[in-house]
Amino acid sequence: MKQWELQCSRCSAKLPFRYQDMKCKCGGTLLVNYDLEHVAQTFTKTSLALRYPSMWRYHELLPIHDPSHIVSLGEGWTPLLRLPDWESKLSLKRLWIKREEQNPTGSFKSRGFSVAVSLLKQAGATKAAVPSNGNAASALAAYAGRAGIQAFVFIPMDCPSLIVDECPMYGATTVLVDGFIHDAAAIIESGRTEQGWVNVGTLKEPGRVEGKKTMGLELAEQLGWTFPNVIIYPTGGGSGIIGMWKAFLELKALGFIDCDMPRFVCVQEEGCQPIVDGLNKSLGGTSVSNTASLPVGDRIIPNPTGMRVPNPPDLELLLSIVEQSSGTAIAVSKEQIAQATHSLGSEGISSSPEGAATWAAMLALSDKGWLRPTDSVVLFNTSHAMKYAKLGTSAAIPIIRTYDDFMLYQDI
Amino acid sequence: MKQWELQCSRCSAKLPFRYQDMKCKCGGTLLVNYDLEHVAQTFTKTSLALRYPSMWRYHELLPIHDPSHIVSLGEGWTPLLRLPDWESKLSLKRLWIKREEQNPTGSFKSRGFSVAVSLLKQAGATKAAVPSNGNAASALAAYAGRAGIQAFVFIPMDCPSLIVDECPMYGATTVLVDGFIHDAAAIIESGRTEQGWVNVGTLKEPGRVEGKKTMGLELAEQLGWTFPNVIIYPTGGGSGIIGMWKAFLELKALGFIDCDMPRFVCVQEEGCQPIVDGLNKSLGGTSVSNTASLPVGDRIIPNPTGMRVPNPPDLELLLSIVEQSSGTAIAVSKEQIAQATHSLGSEGISSSPEGAATWAAMLALSDKGWLRPTDSVVLFNTSHAMKYAKLGTSAAIPIIRTYDDFMLYQDI
Ligand SMILES: Cc1ncc(COP(=O)(O)O)c(C=O)c1O
Ligand SMILES: Cc1ncc(COP(=O)(O)O)c(C=O)c1O
Ligand SMILES: [Zn+2]
Ligand SMILES: [Zn+2]
Repeated sequence: MKQWELQCSRCSAKLPFRYQDMKCKCGGTLLVNYDLEHVAQTFTKTSLALRYPSMWRYHELLPIHDPSHIVSLGEGWTPLLRLPDWESKLSLKRLWIKREEQNPTGSFKSRGFSVAVSLLKQAGATKAAVPSNGNAASALAAYAGRAGIQAFVFIPMDCPSLIVDECPMYGATTVLVDGFIHDAAAIIESGRTEQGWVNVGTLKEPGRVEGKKTMGLELAEQLGWTFPNVIIYPTGGGSGIIGMWKAFLELKALGFIDCDMPRFVCVQEEGCQPIVDGLNKSLGGTSVSNTASLPVGDRIIPNPTGMRVPNPPDLELLLSIVEQSSGTAIAVSKEQIAQATHSLGSEGISSSPEGAATWAAMLALSDKGWLRPTDSVVLFNTSHAMKYAKLGTSAAIPIIRTYDDFMLYQDI
Repeated sequence: MKQWELQCSRCSAKLPFRYQDMKCKCGGTLLVNYDLEHVAQTFTKTSLALRYPSMWRYHELLPIHDPSHIVSLGEGWTPLLRLPDWESKLSLKRLWIKREEQNPTGSFKSRGFSVAVSLLKQAGATKAAVPSNGNAASALAAYAGRAGIQAFVFIPMDCPSLIVDECPMYGATTVLVDGFIHDAAAIIESGRTEQGWVNVGTLKEPGRVEGKKTMGLELAEQLGWTFPNVIIYPTGGGSGIIGMWKAFLELKALGFIDCDMPRFVCVQEEGCQPIVDGLNKSLGGTSVSNTASLPVGDRIIPNPTGMRVPNPPDLELLLSIVEQSSGTAIAVSKEQIAQATHSLGSEGISSSPEGAATWAAMLALSDKGWLRPTDSVVLFNTSHAMKYAKLGTSAAIPIIRTYDDFMLYQDI
């Protein structure tokens, strides 16, 4: 076998490596396969310990030949923060949050696009397009800018305007779509040939899953080459789940880790919950129903737009990962997300609505007894609170001139 | 000597360590002095190479006794990104940008407040107040939230509203001040005793300079234990410059590095330029005058509020650092900053106006011949573009439904 090839996640068919069209004839998704014997020659725990803290420390498990093709903006090796107070409050063995918002484009999407755009460079492509709920668009825009590739991004119009604004800042041709992400995808498919775009949408090319895989590799290394018991992840198209699952399988195959796979929890938004519904229909697994209903007063409720993917490109694969891992799926409400944003804020953590959704899911799963006192749990804060800002709330903040004004305001 | 003491940066008087009141009788600033012989026992290049990538890897050079007092949110070890295209365009030996916006609170202020709040915890303090142009306020709010300390933040009302909004999100009592940062400081001094606030304003306590020092330690380590020739830094109160200067002196004293100190360039905003003016008045140094004037069309011009400090608390110390290092100071216009934001954006880098100001300064200094082809140069992007967002620009972005709509828009 060459250094890498493609393999179908459904029928196991093997194909030579290619840059586009990741659908197998059977309908399954093609994923990258590495020659692990070759990888093992240099990819060792000792050699890794001395490498620079970037996701490219895992280069043997990424499909780039020539280091000069790597398009990097400083992605990966995000902090894994422990929350000891909440471990005792919720009776969990360990609780961490992975701060993916500290990536260069303010979201975990940096990882996938660092690899996807490196692949474009390796292939000599000059134009790329993506349908995106926002963070993927801004990541494509940034990495394409760095690489000198033209980016075209198509974003549903309910996307937070700050994220939209980032795209032209990075030089991308930016368009809002009156519809869902699949409507945006349809527009790209219509124009792909005429425009010469490479479609870098979810599971359309091999790079994004491989880039997100580094979240799993990194997590395992940060935990001293072990797996946590539970991973709670805000799931949209699902490439994060697929990537981390693949990471853990590769680490097992390399003999790095020999314990049980983590239970994967897919968090979705109430009303846009294909994985939750899919799990309820299937035989093997059941989702956890969420009965909590919390008051939010007059707080502004942000939209977890990143999770709004009504038709994930390979739902079957996602369901099989959740079931095989003895995981689950759970939908949370906007009110629960608002409450969770507040709780994380008072811990000093600025969370996107998607990140806060994992907190809400954790509370519900702890309440139901699905999480156990022996569990070590990792939440993923996939993006920055800032990006979802609704300005104007500062109207409620007092404006003063003197200390007396301050005292006056204190009295009210 | 105990593990650490204080020493005056002006008259060299030594004093026992204390948590507040960093002014010496002579008017100079008291800085922390370490027992470097003691430090050298464990602080070695080899031991550092194996430590976790966080600013707390330098703990021997930070004034915290007990690791359980460390208040961390995942700060430090930010990426140092090389910009090879611009090296050739500008004839520079090397050009890097340090992405300080990837810190947990979206700015380099995370570093100073991680140490300052750890010191508060070490001292058993329960309430802290800060006058701030915004990023320091949000950093105090976050770290105090994490530590369970009450935060009170006083912010001039021209601060970008997104940064203001972060403070209540982290649970801080938040007030806007109709005035400058020194007016906010005066309010805190008026209420300090009555309220039991520890004032953690610039140079009021020892932690923030020590935290910012880690930018210098980290930079030297990331460059393989060398110094760059030039550091270009957006300067407000000046604790970043003081901290990095101190870092380099300590590394020299420890025998880690034996080359010339970097030339420090303080970048300021035209019209609020005490360091530039101070340098012009003094004998030793001269600032570089900036004659460029660039059109910006109808782009929205962000405000570099972080640099708006008309009266730095120890201007004399800043001037002496700039002069001793053969550095300079330069003021740039809002138009130049807007242009620079655009240039960095097309490289895939989201820069705050302060970070973009360093780019504008670099162009001017290159133009004047102050930067030489033998120079390696580091710029500091101190905060996130997002935090300064003016929403509403997306009005100019077309809204479409179909690929035909896209073609229509392309034709216009
Ligand atoms: C902030 C955020 N979280 C989560 C997701 C969903 O991630 P995935 O595509 O890996 O399911 C997205 C996708 O847009 C996102 O932007
Ligand atoms: C983004 C930003 N850059 C630069 C500065 C100035 O830094 P210093 O206080 O180290 O001079 C500040 C201070 O508020 C800031 O917020
Ligand atoms: Zn197949
Ligand atoms: Zn003195």
